[in-house]
Order: sequence, then C-alpha cells, then structure tokens
Amino acid sequence: MGIREQARQMKLDSPKMMSAPLEQRNDALARIADALRKNANEIFEANAKDMAAAEQNGVAKTIQKRLRYNEGKLNDNIAGLEQLQELPDPIGKILMQRELDEGLVLTRVSCPIGVIGVIFEARPDALVQISSLCIKSGNCAILKGGKETSNSNRVLFRIVHQAAVDAGLPDSCLVQAEQHSEIDELLQCDGDVDLLIPRGSNQFVSYIMNNTKIPVMGHSSGVCHVYVDKDANQDMAVKVAVDSKTQYPAVCNAAETLLVNRDIAGEFLPKVAKAMHDKGVTFKGTDEAREMVGESTECESIADDEFSTEYGDLMMSVKVVADVREAVDHINMYGSHHTDSIITNNDDTADYFMAMVDSAGVYRNCSTRFADGFRYGFGAEVGISTGKLHARGPVGLDGLETYKYRLIGHGDIVDDYATGKKQFHFKDLA
Amino acid sequence: MGIREQARQMKLDSPKMMSAPLEQRNDALARIADALRKNANEIFEANAKDMAAAEQNGVAKTIQKRLRYNEGKLNDNIAGLEQLQELPDPIGKILMQRELDEGLVLTRVSCPIGVIGVIFEARPDALVQISSLCIKSGNCAILKGGKETSNSNRVLFRIVHQAAVDAGLPDSCLVQAEQHSEIDELLQCDGDVDLLIPRGSNQFVSYIMNNTKIPVMGHSSGVCHVYVDKDANQDMAVKVAVDSKTQYPAVCNAAETLLVNRDIAGEFLPKVAKAMHDKGVTFKGTDEAREMVGESTECESIADDEFSTEYGDLMMSVKVVADVREAVDHINMYGSHHTDSIITNNDDTADYFMAMVDSAGVYRNCSTRFADGFRYGFGAEVGISTGKLHARGPVGLDGLETYKYRLIGHGDIVDDYATGKKQFHFKDLA
Repeated sequence: MGIREQARQMKLDSPKMMSAPLEQRNDALARIADALRKNANEIFEANAKDMAAAEQNGVAKTIQKRLRYNEGKLNDNIAGLEQLQELPDPIGKILMQRELDEGLVLTRVSCPIGVIGVIFEARPDALVQISSLCIKSGNCAILKGGKETSNSNRVLFRIVHQAAVDAGLPDSCLVQAEQHSEIDELLQCDGDVDLLIPRGSNQFVSYIMNNTKIPVMGHSSGVCHVYVDKDANQDMAVKVAVDSKTQYPAVCNAAETLLVNRDIAGEFLPKVAKAMHDKGVTFKGTDEAREMVGESTECESIADDEFSTEYGDLMMSVKVVADVREAVDHINMYGSHHTDSIITNNDDTADYFMAMVDSAGVYRNCSTRFADGFRYGFGAEVGISTGKLHARGPVGLDGLETYKYRLIGHGDIVDDYATGKKQFHFKDLA
Repeated sequence: MGIREQARQMKLDSPKMMSAPLEQRNDALARIADALRKNANEIFEANAKDMAAAEQNGVAKTIQKRLRYNEGKLNDNIAGLEQLQELPDPIGKILMQRELDEGLVLTRVSCPIGVIGVIFEARPDALVQISSLCIKSGNCAILKGGKETSNSNRVLFRIVHQAAVDAGLPDSCLVQAEQHSEIDELLQCDGDVDLLIPRGSNQFVSYIMNNTKIPVMGHSSGVCHVYVDKDANQDMAVKVAVDSKTQYPAVCNAAETLLVNRDIAGEFLPKVAKAMHDKGVTFKGTDEAREMVGESTECESIADDEFSTEYGDLMMSVKVVADVREAVDHINMYGSHHTDSIITNNDDTADYFMAMVDSAGVYRNCSTRFADGFRYGFGAEVGISTGKLHARGPVGLDGLETYKYRLIGHGDIVDDYATGKKQFHFKDLA
C-alpha cells in the first residue's frame, strides 16, 4: 500500500483511535518504554550503521551528535514516556456548556484532530517523542524521519508500533514513510490527513506550505529581540541579553537583535559589548551604535534589511532607538513574531510593549530562551508555532486537540423557534 | 494605494487596533448604529440603484431578496450592533496562568488575530455585521462584498468606517476592496493578512484555498445526516427528520441523508416518507429503502457516490443500515463533517455515535438545523467552519481571537536552569 491508501485507511480508523480510553493510551506508552529497554541492543546496532554511514559521508561532528542514539538518549526517551503518562487526559475536557433552552444542552468538548503527518529531522529520539505525543493525544500519525537515521528509525518504529498494537490500539494508528518521494505523496493526502507538522529548515517548511492543501503548523524563522529601556536595571539587562544570545545560539528562541534606548545607550552599550565579546559574540550595528560601543570592541556595520536576519550563531544586530514606541515598531516590522523581551522597571512602558508587540511571546525582564514547551511546563513539545491560527508559541498536547459540539435534546426542532413558539434562554452551565 | 500597500499599512497599525480599549470599540458600534439611522435614506437610495440593476439583469426574485436593504434589514443590523455591545470582551481573557518558578509567571491571554480579509456574498447587511464583528474583536479587516450590491456597499462602508474613526480607532482599521481583481491581489498578501474568511459557494471557497498561502477559515459543503436508531421514539424521529430536511433546505445545516436501522425500517420508512412527501420532499434511496417506502410515495433510485451530494433542496438520500456502526461508517465516509444527529433512547448507542462521528456537531434527539452561531448563543456568527484547526462549527467572536504568552520575571535566565542552579516548580495559578 502506498501512503495515499494508508492515509485513507487511517482516516477511516481514526475514530477508534480518538475514542481509545486514557488507560489504553497510557498502557501503550508504558509498553513502548518497556520494549525500548528490552530491545536496546538491536536499536544501538541499527544506529551504529547510521553512524558509520554518516562518518563515511563526512557528516559534520555537530550533526553526528544528533544522529546518535545511545544509553543517554534511551533514558531521556523513557523518562519522557513516564512523564507523558502522568499528564492529564487532553481529550474530553469540557470547554463550554450551555443550556440553550429547557432540556437542550450544548457542550464544547476537546477531541483529537484525527490524522497528523509529521516530517521531522534526522534524530532517532524524535521518532519516539512524536509518536508518543500522538498516542497520548489520540491521533493517528504518519511519520517521516530524516534519511540519515533510516536504520535506527526502522527499528524504533517497529518497536513503538508493536507496543501500541499490543495495547489494543488500531493497527493503523502509526505508519512510517521511509522514502523521500513519499513526502510529496503525503502532501496530496488532503481530505484524509488533517494536519501537517514539518520540522526543519525555513526553506523546507516553506516548501511544505507551498505544496499542499492540508493545514500546516510550522514555524518560520526565529528573529527574537531584547529591548533595553531607559528605565532598565542595566546589570540585569546585560545578564538577560547575554543569556538570550549565547545560552544556545543555534535555536529559534535565541535573540538576534539588541535594541537600546538612546537615553542610556552611551553608558549601556560599552558594558554589554564587553560582556558579549567575552562570550565570543560579534556585534553588527548602525553607525550610531558603532560609535557608542567604542573602539575597544568590534562592531561591524549593518544595512537596514539585515535586521531580519536569523544568524543562529554568535552574531548580533544592534540598534539605538528613541523610545519603546520605536522599539515596538522595529520589532513588528523586522521580527518574526516569535518571542521578544523588554528590560524595564517601568510598568507603563512594559504594559505598552507587551500589548503592542505582535508576537507569540512577549516577555519582561527575562530571557527569550524561556520560549519552550518544557520550560512552559507542557511536559513535551511538538514544535513552536509562529502562525497565529490554532496554536501559537510552544505547542504541547493541547495543540494536537480540536473540539466538537455535542447537542442533546428531546425531539427539539428549529421550527418551534423560527415561528416564535419557543425562545432560547441561554444559561451557561460551565 | 492598492490592496497590497493598504494591507501593509494595516499590518503596521494593527497593534493599535488590538489594544483599543473595550469602551472605544463599543463606542464605535454605538456610533455605527446612530449613523445608519441618520443616513438611512441615502443607503436606501443607493440600494434602489442596485435593485434596479438586478431587475434589469434578470436576477432571480429569491436572490433579489438578499440584495435588498430596507427598513427591516436596517433594524436587524441595529439590533445586532446593540447585542454585540452587550457581549463580554473577547480580548484579554486569561486562558492559563502558571508560576514556572518563584517570581517567574507565565500567562496565556487572548488577543486579536490582527488583519483579516473577508470576502462575502452580495448582502448589504453582511457588510455591517462583519465589520462590527471585526471591530468588537479588535481586528483590522479588508472587506470585499458581492458586486451586485456595490452601490449599497460603498455607502454603508463609508458610514461604518467614518463612525469607527470618529470613535478614535485607526483610519486603517477597515478597508474596502471594490474591484473583483482586488481579490487576487488580496490572496497575495501573505505576511500582512493573517486570516482569510471566504463566504460563498464551495467552488469559490476552494478557489481561495488553492490560490493563497494565507490561512483560510471556510466551510466546504454541508452533507448532514439524521440516523434513526432501532431504539428511537419514532414520532420524535419523524418530527426531527422533517425539521432537519425542510425547515430551510437551502442552507448547509439542513440534512441531506436519512439513515434508518433495519430493525425498524419496515415500520418507520412509510411513516417518514408520508410526512416528508406532505412537505414536498422527494426521496432517493437504495433498492432496499425503496421497497420499504412502499408504492404510495415516490422514491427515486440512488447510486453509491450520490450519498455525498448536497442537494440544498427538497430532495433526500435514504439508506437502510444494520446498526449504529454502519451508520457511523457511512457518515464518516460520505459526510462533510458538519453536523449529524442520532435519534435514540439508548444511552450506549448515543454515546458510541457521538464519540465516533468525526463532525463539528454530534447531536442526539434534535434537529441538525440548530448548528448556527445565533442558536448556540454566540450573539453573532462569522461563518461555519468544517475545518478542524483553530475553530470548528459555528464561529463567533472567540474564533477571531488568538492568544499570546506573557512571561514576567526579575532578570531570570535559562542558563541557571540548564546548569541545575535553579529548578522549575510549575504551580498553576489559573
């Protein structure tokens, strides 16, 4: 069966998966953890093949780290599976309940989305994470992982799928796509696949968005800002800016641009430049910023359109602004609506910033690096959405649910209301 | 300025609209109601031109009814504006609040989506409804109405826009597109327009979805079902089926298909056929159903693939099924995931149906015609979504909001948590 036929079958079976009881879904997660432990050697052997191929193909050492599946990754996966079992059921939450009229009750209740396609980077641990999130959330999933870990993926998928079936979940709850050509086939499955979650480079996510009618939840770039206000505690500002830029520069919630209020820029910029320089950061700034940074620290020249650049590295754009208004306008114009932080002790200024910045995360006096599902206490994260529809920011289990309306009556018909024989009374019950 | 430039400006101004206080947004609604009353004659004159043109072009009388803007429509619009002012503010709702650690508080708060493009049918009252929904929800909007009411739309837009500006809302809060060519321009505004809401035929909605990168909230067809179980009260079943089919056959929540349990079909089908026939409904059924309906009532023959047909008229598909399982499978296969109702007195059967039918509305013992924003008590409706992402079913003000995460700290940095110096304690506050 090709992906198209498998997606069709999955769609027909998805109501079974949606209505699987919590105990069964948690049992599947427990069985996956068990099976991973029992089959650890087979997984490590498959991964060794992937690692040997990576070495042979001259894959960079930093990327090789992500391809590796060792005892540490196994333990992380098992810990994640245990945490996930502890989380409350995301299905069946009553989101609204209203009596429309005597004996006619409307309930909005959370339920799984249905069939989800996830295309993810070459990281064997991601296969386990994603499939367990889909199981806990009651969704069927088609999984396509990076080809650099195809041997590991094949073994891991077999183990995860078997454990799910052993727990009594439908055979079609999880499907693996192995060929790159199957991605294009997956993109054509509108009507059967309800949501696509692509993880990877901006170009890859854009390709997906441009080539499918299926709704896509993906994030574009992460151009995050730290704005240091005139009423900032400057020591705090240095500390937060350095953490935002350097704690893990390659990820999307790292800051790319530092905006500084002109009233304090002359005093603040040399201080932050020194601290950044000590961490290996190079500044790229406007002429005004470069002058204020001083000659002791290097600051390259920047062109206006470069303010939209996601460096993903130890490089940072710097600009001096007149006030919070100019900072907000700059962020809304050049940013990626991901996460932006203001450093200030002035409540009014902070309120303005947090209301006017049009981003998934608006922070005060803390690092942009907090934008993450684990740090938000979601237990797990499917990805970070910079779109505004459905889910925004870090997406946890809730982002994999939709809702349906249940209406229970006793033979109620609309004609009685249209003719004025009866009237709605709308009483909220929950 | 073309639509592209106007959308760009709107995007830059949208944070002002998003943060306009409730009093100001309500004041704008009150001013619109006032201005409509004061300028009624001018509106009626413009509408008379549209009506004369429609008459000249031989537009059908049933459609002419929708083009007309008279005292009755004016009063409906004003009543709607008054209701909308009474509704609670959809902005600033605290959806979640969690202390991540001492003094580090995360809040998920509802906020407007930003810039919305609405393309709607030729109905002058819709222009007023849609623009007032956008104002109440804090969104900027680009409005494109049907060309058959262009004279009415022009006058109404000028009045609505001026009232909004008089209330202090940004000049760019509302923009009108008048040319059909501007629709294609609007579809290119990804990055500036956050959401498109097309209203109209299936073909039109599909065209929009296929030709834009902007997220689209639209409904496809409405193929709704009534399933009459063996444990149904048959008199109730007749009443609900007739209402679902005939109360307003042209709309999407009218039922298209009647499914009947085989155990009672022999008794029930002739009864429901007679009641439907009295209302002018023609049945199209399987051979088995045709035989059971009997010779006294006409029942045409149906082919399997016709079960996906949205008649929008006094025509109904009929099928005999073995049990609730076959009914559910039929609905999930041939339906449009809109609204489906079961008639039964058996709780287990009802629970199975409501859990397994993958539709926005799953009903028990009541008419599918209840699927409507007004009847759900939303006060107003932007449309009905048969998609599962973001909003599902009738979409009220809440569907025009997204959320953002606010994080307030005191100089908190991620490095302290990464190095184990500090630990999250995740305490839910709301």
